Amino acid sequence: MKIAAIGGGVIGGGWIARFILAGHDVRVFDPHPEAARIVGEVMGNASRAWGKLYQAPLPEAGRIIWCDSIADAVKDADYIQESVPERLDLKHKILSEIEAAAPADAVIGSSTSGFKPSELREGARHPERILVAHPFNPVYLLPVVEIVGGSGDGADAARRATDLLSQVGMKPVSIAREIDAHIGDRLLEAVWREALWLVNDGIATTEEIDDIIRFGFGLRWAQMGLFETYRIAGGEAGMKHFLAQFGPALKWPWTKLMDVPELDDRLVGMIADQSDAQSGMHSIRELERIRDDNLIGIFQALKANNWGAGQNLQEMENRFYAREVAAPSGYPLQLHRASVSGEWLDYNGHMTEFRYLQVLGDATDAFMIHVGLDADYRAGGFSAYTVESHIRHLAEASGGDRLKVETRLLGYDAKKFRLFHSILREDGTIVATGEHMLLHVDTKEGRAVAMSGDLEAAFARIAALDLALPAPEAAGAGIRRIGQREAAA
Amino acid sequence: MKIAAIGGGVIGGGWIARFILAGHDVRVFDPHPEAARIVGEVMGNASRAWGKLYQAPLPEAGRIIWCDSIADAVKDADYIQESVPERLDLKHKILSEIEAAAPADAVIGSSTSGFKPSELREGARHPERILVAHPFNPVYLLPVVEIVGGSGDGADAARRATDLLSQVGMKPVSIAREIDAHIGDRLLEAVWREALWLVNDGIATTEEIDDIIRFGFGLRWAQMGLFETYRIAGGEAGMKHFLAQFGPALKWPWTKLMDVPELDDRLVGMIADQSDAQSGMHSIRELERIRDDNLIGIFQALKANNWGAGQNLQEMENRFYAREVAAPSGYPLQLHRASVSGEWLDYNGHMTEFRYLQVLGDATDAFMIHVGLDADYRAGGFSAYTVESHIRHLAEASGGDRLKVETRLLGYDAKKFRLFHSILREDGTIVATGEHMLLHVDTKEGRAVAMSGDLEAAFARIAALDLALPAPEAAGAGIRRIGQREAAA
Repeated sequence: MKIAAIGGGVIGGGWIARFILAGHDVRVFDPHPEAARIVGEVMGNASRAWGKLYQAPLPEAGRIIWCDSIADAVKDADYIQESVPERLDLKHKILSEIEAAAPADAVIGSSTSGFKPSELREGARHPERILVAHPFNPVYLLPVVEIVGGSGDGADAARRATDLLSQVGMKPVSIAREIDAHIGDRLLEAVWREALWLVNDGIATTEEIDDIIRFGFGLRWAQMGLFETYRIAGGEAGMKHFLAQFGPALKWPWTKLMDVPELDDRLVGMIADQSDAQSGMHSIRELERIRDDNLIGIFQALKANNWGAGQNLQEMENRFYAREVAAPSGYPLQLHRASVSGEWLDYNGHMTEFRYLQVLGDATDAFMIHVGLDADYRAGGFSAYTVESHIRHLAEASGGDRLKVETRLLGYDAKKFRLFHSILREDGTIVATGEHMLLHVDTKEGRAVAMSGDLEAAFARIAALDLALPAPEAAGAGIRRIGQREAAA
Repeated sequence: MKIAAIGGGVIGGGWIARFILAGHDVRVFDPHPEAARIVGEVMGNASRAWGKLYQAPLPEAGRIIWCDSIADAVKDADYIQESVPERLDLKHKILSEIEAAAPADAVIGSSTSGFKPSELREGARHPERILVAHPFNPVYLLPVVEIVGGSGDGADAARRATDLLSQVGMKPVSIAREIDAHIGDRLLEAVWREALWLVNDGIATTEEIDDIIRFGFGLRWAQMGLFETYRIAGGEAGMKHFLAQFGPALKWPWTKLMDVPELDDRLVGMIADQSDAQSGMHSIRELERIRDDNLIGIFQALKANNWGAGQNLQEMENRFYAREVAAPSGYPLQLHRASVSGEWLDYNGHMTEFRYLQVLGDATDAFMIHVGLDADYRAGGFSAYTVESHIRHLAEASGGDRLKVETRLLGYDAKKFRLFHSILREDGTIVATGEHMLLHVDTKEGRAVAMSGDLEAAFARIAALDLALPAPEAAGAGIRRIGQREAAA
């Protein structure tokens, strides 16, 4: 897929970063004198975030190709993302230039929150391939993208946009009928109006409102949204029962939403002052990184539960892994890579001790998949359990380091095998080694049993390769004695 | 603090569970014939969740004491939580009975979402001690509680409620002026109305709306809320700039919120059917556990970043730890405990390999704090780094297991020390051992140096205790050879 981006502000930059980090080149046009700086800053945040977010090896990043005109940017494009300012006359002018130069079947997605597809399409040559593809900030992390305009003639364009955007880790949601502001911004707008009243009337400060959200229902919404949360509230009696209870409250005089507060200088000043008191101790750049780190943590937590945005992350990692496993290398085996994320650092600024065993364990998993001891084999009731590990720390790994693991099979018999991993930095320094004994077990009976013939043959092939190398110096060694027991040893 | 709960439904049960798990006895009155079953089910979920949520050792749980009358429940209470159905005449009757029997200075918190303190206080003897203390479901997990009625005469009651509720892990937010539905439910109500329109008009299904929330702004709100998120959107130009851009949109005809959709049978049926299609594959009990596991993961992710609800969790754990560290035990040292959370399990349903090293590493940290190699000592530019570990897996740990670690100091000299940890289940079975060599280092120069005299003296005291025990069988052992290299050994 050949991708072009027209407009490179914070939203356009977020799109560009997402495409590039997922391995696509992007041709970019933006006449703004600061465009390269703005996109560069977004790219900086995005690279940092992806390095921490994905535990799978990332693909080689694509390139950003700055173009001097819209025509140059879109001439060969399969997909074009438009993120120019929210003025309909400007959007029409840009879309017309795009259509004049782009292939006739290129899909055009607009980041607009303010305009409907029917408005964007006015006067277009091929209106059916113009869609709304509305993302949320930060575009390089938040998965959701609202696809509008995919009914009727727009179905083919919507299908192609959905395929592409899913491949770069997004969660496209197709909206059946166009409506002003689509879905997400309407919901946000409703909350925003109510929150403005609460501040305006001195009921609560911006910080109190934020705390009520982030220590309360915000924690529910990160995982389940509105209706699924209420489904639980309704209990076994079901959604109808819940609605019957909740319904009458809609008639209560709870809200001032029938009216709009005057956003005059006084209210603007009040909100700005409260926001300074709440968050002014952090720069915007700091807040962005705090937000991104929290998002990454939430994604990874949801991944562990195979739910929502975590499921989406897992699918993306599977895609990355599939690419790696397809290309095994020589001997020692290189089956696993990892990057050292901020979450992996201890109070000394070094990779935390137990994360080394995580990397070693993942390398053992990769070896098992490589040799055929995979999910299918395990489904038959057999697996391999580690019974002993010996880890040596030889150098430090720091945040951002990319690590690779070299794996040797030092020995095996029908019921067990012994691996020796070396964790290397990109400069070739060995930061740690791990020696591991694993038993081949019947998982139901919980005891060591002989492995299948196919599996043993695979072990034999690898073991033969290992005999060509000398045994690692540290193999079989124990930890030496010191101190009060030394004399007794 | 002596605590009473009047009303034990899902909300009352959530309060009771939170108090009990934090170590308080609770006297309960609820005439509902199913009260004990309902509270028991909430307690089941809550115990499971707290065991996974807190990595610190939990205090001994309090007891639930069922009472035959309001008078019996509240007679000695310092704090009373009222969670009866939302009818003002009923609330008045119950509050009057509470006041007739409770000590004159007991604080009464009402879980009401529908009534203001001025309404609850009508006709009360001591109106100033009646507050709204409005929580969010699940009460045993979500920290926020809205405290209303704390201005003027209510200040003392609000301060006492805030102290108590903070101690059981909540985040009390005091609301300056009373308003119908307080803050959180007003915001939810605004979104709910908008969402009802979207479903009613066939723009989106319940699942699509939920996906747009949970793959989008819900992920932001779990950590920052509304205003802090928009502060970032405003960029370095600041909140005023952002408001100036955003303001005009308030006048756009985006929303139908000026009107209320008719929640007739047709719309109720439509929502119920869509919700079945979205979530009907899970029972409510399953959904509750999925929700709780996701919340726990999100809390723990935010704890790693010391932010929002994670900060709150950390403070609670510090409170639990402080209780433990105050009472060190004999020798071998018992300085660390951990419980096996769902996140710690691998595809075999056992504790993942690297989590053993996490437990061992935490035990090493606890040993270092115990011996004086703590944050203050590290601030002086010295620390201890692990250079070698030998782990043996002897039995399995499963989800929910509570583990403790016994720690021995096998040896030390001025620049290094050697620890031997045993990880035990509650039944006394040793599930794993870890032997570790650590160097005492100058963190700036990155090399081993002699430790302080005080520190060496502390090591000497512990090492002397260790000489009274035989050396552990496995100490100093290496991993034995098997297979193709065995003959060569």
